[in-house]
Amino acid sequence: MHRRNFLKAAGLSAAAVPITTPAIAQSSPPIQWRLTSMFPRNLDTIFGAADVFAKAVYEATDGRFVIQTFAAGEIVGGLQAVDAIGNGTVEMGHVAPGGYVGKDPTFAFGMTVPFGMNARQTNAWLYHGGGMDLMNEFYAKHNIYALLGGNTGAQMGGFFRREIKTVDDLKGLKFRIGGLAGQVVAKLGVIPQQIAAGDVYSSLERGTIDAAEWVGPYDDEKLGLHKVAPYYYYPGFWEGGPALMFLFNKAKWEELPKAYKGAAVSAAALANVDMTAKYDARNPAGLRKLVASGAQLRAFSQDVLEASFKVANEVYEEISSKNEDFKKVYQSYREFRNEEYLWWQVAEYTYDNFMIRTRARG
Amino acid sequence: MHRRNFLKAAGLSAAAVPITTPAIAQSSPPIQWRLTSMFPRNLDTIFGAADVFAKAVYEATDGRFVIQTFAAGEIVGGLQAVDAIGNGTVEMGHVAPGGYVGKDPTFAFGMTVPFGMNARQTNAWLYHGGGMDLMNEFYAKHNIYALLGGNTGAQMGGFFRREIKTVDDLKGLKFRIGGLAGQVVAKLGVIPQQIAAGDVYSSLERGTIDAAEWVGPYDDEKLGLHKVAPYYYYPGFWEGGPALMFLFNKAKWEELPKAYKGAAVSAAALANVDMTAKYDARNPAGLRKLVASGAQLRAFSQDVLEASFKVANEVYEEISSKNEDFKKVYQSYREFRNEEYLWWQVAEYTYDNFMIRTRARG
Repeated sequence: MHRRNFLKAAGLSAAAVPITTPAIAQSSPPIQWRLTSMFPRNLDTIFGAADVFAKAVYEATDGRFVIQTFAAGEIVGGLQAVDAIGNGTVEMGHVAPGGYVGKDPTFAFGMTVPFGMNARQTNAWLYHGGGMDLMNEFYAKHNIYALLGGNTGAQMGGFFRREIKTVDDLKGLKFRIGGLAGQVVAKLGVIPQQIAAGDVYSSLERGTIDAAEWVGPYDDEKLGLHKVAPYYYYPGFWEGGPALMFLFNKAKWEELPKAYKGAAVSAAALANVDMTAKYDARNPAGLRKLVASGAQLRAFSQDVLEASFKVANEVYEEISSKNEDFKKVYQSYREFRNEEYLWWQVAEYTYDNFMIRTRARG
Repeated sequence: MHRRNFLKAAGLSAAAVPITTPAIAQSSPPIQWRLTSMFPRNLDTIFGAADVFAKAVYEATDGRFVIQTFAAGEIVGGLQAVDAIGNGTVEMGHVAPGGYVGKDPTFAFGMTVPFGMNARQTNAWLYHGGGMDLMNEFYAKHNIYALLGGNTGAQMGGFFRREIKTVDDLKGLKFRIGGLAGQVVAKLGVIPQQIAAGDVYSSLERGTIDAAEWVGPYDDEKLGLHKVAPYYYYPGFWEGGPALMFLFNKAKWEELPKAYKGAAVSAAALANVDMTAKYDARNPAGLRKLVASGAQLRAFSQDVLEASFKVANEVYEEISSKNEDFKKVYQSYREFRNEEYLWWQVAEYTYDNFMIRTRARG
């Protein structure tokens, strides 16, 4: 905005900007908030986004707006975060909203859905395609206001004890996979499993489950799952570009001084772009380590992808027929996605295509 | 304006204003800066990033740090911005650093080079691959400190009066293309042209030039070049993910109060992710308009891409042999890019591939 426009927006004449110290004190009270993350601290990139946010807010407000970050379980469990924020137990949180589809499947669009948009497209929809407004309309029903706060990029499909070549191989597969993705693959015979992160390794080792999905190479490598389930599948078609959200208790957000809101908006954008950049910077080395220690890369077959796409669309139609919020957001989301990929196939995709093939040839 | 009137204008009653602590006033002095953009105002997305930045800084500092934005030519021309910032004529600017390769080709890495990284990879290198530190080491020699401030995503290859099927078709082609990209394609016989933006249409119409590249569909459509040069090529292999930078006079940056630096760091990240999201949101409709009004999409042939890749690497070797700064940054850049594409081909690319093919089939 041009300076003159600022001044107009602030209701001031361009002739003078008399900035007085008393006004400053009024608008900059010391505030302390608590943020509950949905993640454990050892997921340093995804948990770390909460610290990136809190630090940026602290710095821009000269230490007057302090946000303490807490890992899942330190105040409430990850799946209780939405309730705790809505009822004011904590002022805010940092979550993957797809975890709350049991509450309402519409939450998923604040993260992603199977065969959704990639990370940049998700930013485009949320920031400039009306997505964030739609989501905030929905979140308001839960007494929440949200800012976009991260994206992991396309995830991997997880670790499998045996190869999955056809749709038939999915039948009876005990797969640790949650949310809408679990509902989708269940239609193909998968038996979705809910297992605490700490128990995944032993469950795979014992054969209690057949497969487990997590994030991408950087986070996946730390779990060591490839040692007990060596087939490492891609792409994670249920998380092509999952977003994370900073959720605020709506009344608490609205009470914030204007400058603190401004600091939070910028800090959330920083946390968003920073998280994707960190994953993008760290995933190549994670992938090399995994492959060097025995992970065997496998692409999901076209058969599996196409069957999954078909049942995903069925799930969306079924939910839309029963849930007006979901229907409304899904329509916006789907239309935007289809236009994005119309453009994506032109410059972005052909550019990456050439670079990948050229690299492969040395 | 009297203090009392200001307080009234700001919605505060003078009686209600408490006395402030000196510490706050000390660290939050009113500051007014000027920002010179390298771009004209009608490129609303790319010029607009300067306004996004200035507004975010204004809001987070409660209106105490005011940055006026000026289009190219209003204070200095776009190509003079680096000098004007370095010598303190203006405190800061917003630029595509590739425009300064005539000064030193190392500037290019603050934007991109032919066959460089895509937008997300560029963020990853700059934020978390040591890239920004390397660039700031270099910028310091020009009395400049920089923050990453935007990315257009992969650009188009521009408008051509006739089809380009083989490398031979490039010989003698008068192409409006600048910077390192011009040097690269010159090796294949292209005659790079420098023509002011306002003269491109008439030059193409008269046949003074044969081709011109600009940005992507959203910006390109406004120029109407497809009416006089209908073949619209992709990808713009010289701009696979070009970054923009906010450049600061180094001494002025260092003098800033800590909180204002904090606000600027977050605001620059906001401007960065916001610009890419805007282009991604707007390009699909731009592409549809262009095609509907006669633009004919053409992919550069493998022949053209491979020959260009080969001569690009030759150019980098030649410059590296003469320029230590370029050599040092190029080594970091190239190694990072190659690792990025190792990972990219796994989840991101295969995901986009499936989504594009599925969309094409309806």
